[in-house]
Amino acid sequence: MEQIYNFSAGPAVLPKTVLQQARDEMLDWHGSGMSVMEMSHRGNEFISIIENLENDLRELLDIPQNYKVLFLQGGASSQFAMVPMNLLQNKTQADYINTGEWSKKAINEAKQFCTVNIAASSEQMHFTYAPTQDQWHLDPAAAYVHYTSNETIGGVEFNWVPKMLDTHIPLVADMSSNLLSRPLDVSLFGLIYAGAQKNLGPAGLTLVIIREDLLASPLANTPTLFNYQAHAKNNSMLNTPPTYAIYITGLVIAWLKKIGGLETIEQINISKANLLYDLFDTSDFYHCPVTKSDRSRMNVPFTLKDPSLDNAFLEQAKDNGLIQLKGHRSVGGMRASIYNAMPIEGVANLVAFMKDFAHKNA
Amino acid sequence: MEQIYNFSAGPAVLPKTVLQQARDEMLDWHGSGMSVMEMSHRGNEFISIIENLENDLRELLDIPQNYKVLFLQGGASSQFAMVPMNLLQNKTQADYINTGEWSKKAINEAKQFCTVNIAASSEQMHFTYAPTQDQWHLDPAAAYVHYTSNETIGGVEFNWVPKMLDTHIPLVADMSSNLLSRPLDVSLFGLIYAGAQKNLGPAGLTLVIIREDLLASPLANTPTLFNYQAHAKNNSMLNTPPTYAIYITGLVIAWLKKIGGLETIEQINISKANLLYDLFDTSDFYHCPVTKSDRSRMNVPFTLKDPSLDNAFLEQAKDNGLIQLKGHRSVGGMRASIYNAMPIEGVANLVAFMKDFAHKNA
Repeated sequence: MEQIYNFSAGPAVLPKTVLQQARDEMLDWHGSGMSVMEMSHRGNEFISIIENLENDLRELLDIPQNYKVLFLQGGASSQFAMVPMNLLQNKTQADYINTGEWSKKAINEAKQFCTVNIAASSEQMHFTYAPTQDQWHLDPAAAYVHYTSNETIGGVEFNWVPKMLDTHIPLVADMSSNLLSRPLDVSLFGLIYAGAQKNLGPAGLTLVIIREDLLASPLANTPTLFNYQAHAKNNSMLNTPPTYAIYITGLVIAWLKKIGGLETIEQINISKANLLYDLFDTSDFYHCPVTKSDRSRMNVPFTLKDPSLDNAFLEQAKDNGLIQLKGHRSVGGMRASIYNAMPIEGVANLVAFMKDFAHKNA
Repeated sequence: MEQIYNFSAGPAVLPKTVLQQARDEMLDWHGSGMSVMEMSHRGNEFISIIENLENDLRELLDIPQNYKVLFLQGGASSQFAMVPMNLLQNKTQADYINTGEWSKKAINEAKQFCTVNIAASSEQMHFTYAPTQDQWHLDPAAAYVHYTSNETIGGVEFNWVPKMLDTHIPLVADMSSNLLSRPLDVSLFGLIYAGAQKNLGPAGLTLVIIREDLLASPLANTPTLFNYQAHAKNNSMLNTPPTYAIYITGLVIAWLKKIGGLETIEQINISKANLLYDLFDTSDFYHCPVTKSDRSRMNVPFTLKDPSLDNAFLEQAKDNGLIQLKGHRSVGGMRASIYNAMPIEGVANLVAFMKDFAHKNA
């Protein structure tokens, strides 16, 4: 096997030691004689796996006791509906911050269920920045405030947590692409959700962290599987959970703990991101459209000065084992996703290739 | 590793060759340098995996061209809501056949969305048989007719396909625990669904086969992820699908094709089931509550004449490598689930143990 570095935005690279352990345990988990895929979700073996994962997550993120951790299916896209269906309660409107393609999807889904107030938006500037809080126009009648803490496509990240003026209004965040990439004060949020397939594990698992006082009866006509309270009451066993994805996520979280937790991974992530952003700041061959203060540490979009070189760039990168660098079809250009599991060597190799490519094509 | 036989009702045993292949490909799928878990769902590699799976399923089940095959999340429990949300259209009622715990769950969820007419029920006889069609009272105003082709908990299986008097009313079946265990005429159905974690693959994937004319706008307030039409338009890529579960299911289906397809597996499944049912019919130590004609080939519930021996039975079975034999908490007793991937040696070992246990405790 040739060494490759996979810059996919998700599903994405996983730690090699995690994959090795999964390989070694594939036919026989801890002497049980079973693959984790074959285990009853109500058996002692799997219960220990899901409980260990929850405990490790609680420890890493210091999740307060009055928050439930739910392991669901359906991706962040399901959360776009579950959030209004469960959190509106007797209100009819919600505040949304619009910072890119994923914000827009959340907003469009919420419009099915309530009036959406766009409290701030960077759309007129092509989603190249995160509006500072003095630009937000929050509505006191909102059931909640929703924002996307990192835009996977646009590469815009909030490097700060919004402050709620009315602390009775919960803050909700889609953290699909930056949860666990840095320390976080969970107590500032009412609800956090994340699809697993970036920093957590494989596709098919969705993590929800919800403050217990927000668990209440949802809107009429809400499917039971979209009811947070029902999931919480059943400890994520309302129906069969995605057991193998939970197992792999458990291995990833154990790896993260072992290498030093969120403070350590944050330093590594800053170093990796700087390798790329420093190149943009010293080159006029490459350009990053995002305002400096709001550049994502996870997803790094960039363009070549001469777009006619795009295909050559992607082909030669691939020849060098650097894959999945094409930008999202909605924005074009390039994008390097450098999640927790991307080793710094991968980013260093990419930067070396980019310098060489710029030199040869200047 | 000690050889064990796992009679779990799901997640359940998988073919050993499938797990071996998954192990061997864990770090490098077909020379790609990636695990399947790390692949972009829109990349060529994964597209080939999902397309091969669909093609193999279409070939095995001879799925007509006017049916869509969807790969979803959320389990059969999500389908309990998706079916009425999408199939009611301008009608307000649906017919349900009530043959056990899973029928009841489907019925209770449907009641959120419409009037449910129980067209037939075996509840008064403790769900021990499948009502013949002359006992059904179908309503011509029903939007669809729903039944559970195999009750995983009660061990009741329909060995026949219901006939629709009004062919404009679609027949809908929850086939979670017997799809792909025998040949099937898909053209008799409007919609078939199945959670993967029995005969198909790992938990976290749900298969839906739907006739194209049933793809239409769902009820108001239906989450986009619960909209069959939206999934069909996007070829199951409305959002990130559960990629690894799809890959494993692809390996399972390829294995099924290789060993001879549905005719072959049906013969094997009959042989396996007969080993157990023949024992019940020649023993008064064990008892199967299900009417002979409706006994499931997949899930075999039974009781011991003396329930005070239950724990000893389970413990000694486990000592013999025969695990997950405890009946569902809602019905008690024992249950042996003997899906496609359970080798006949496993059932033979179980029967030998049961004879020995009966002999020693008679």
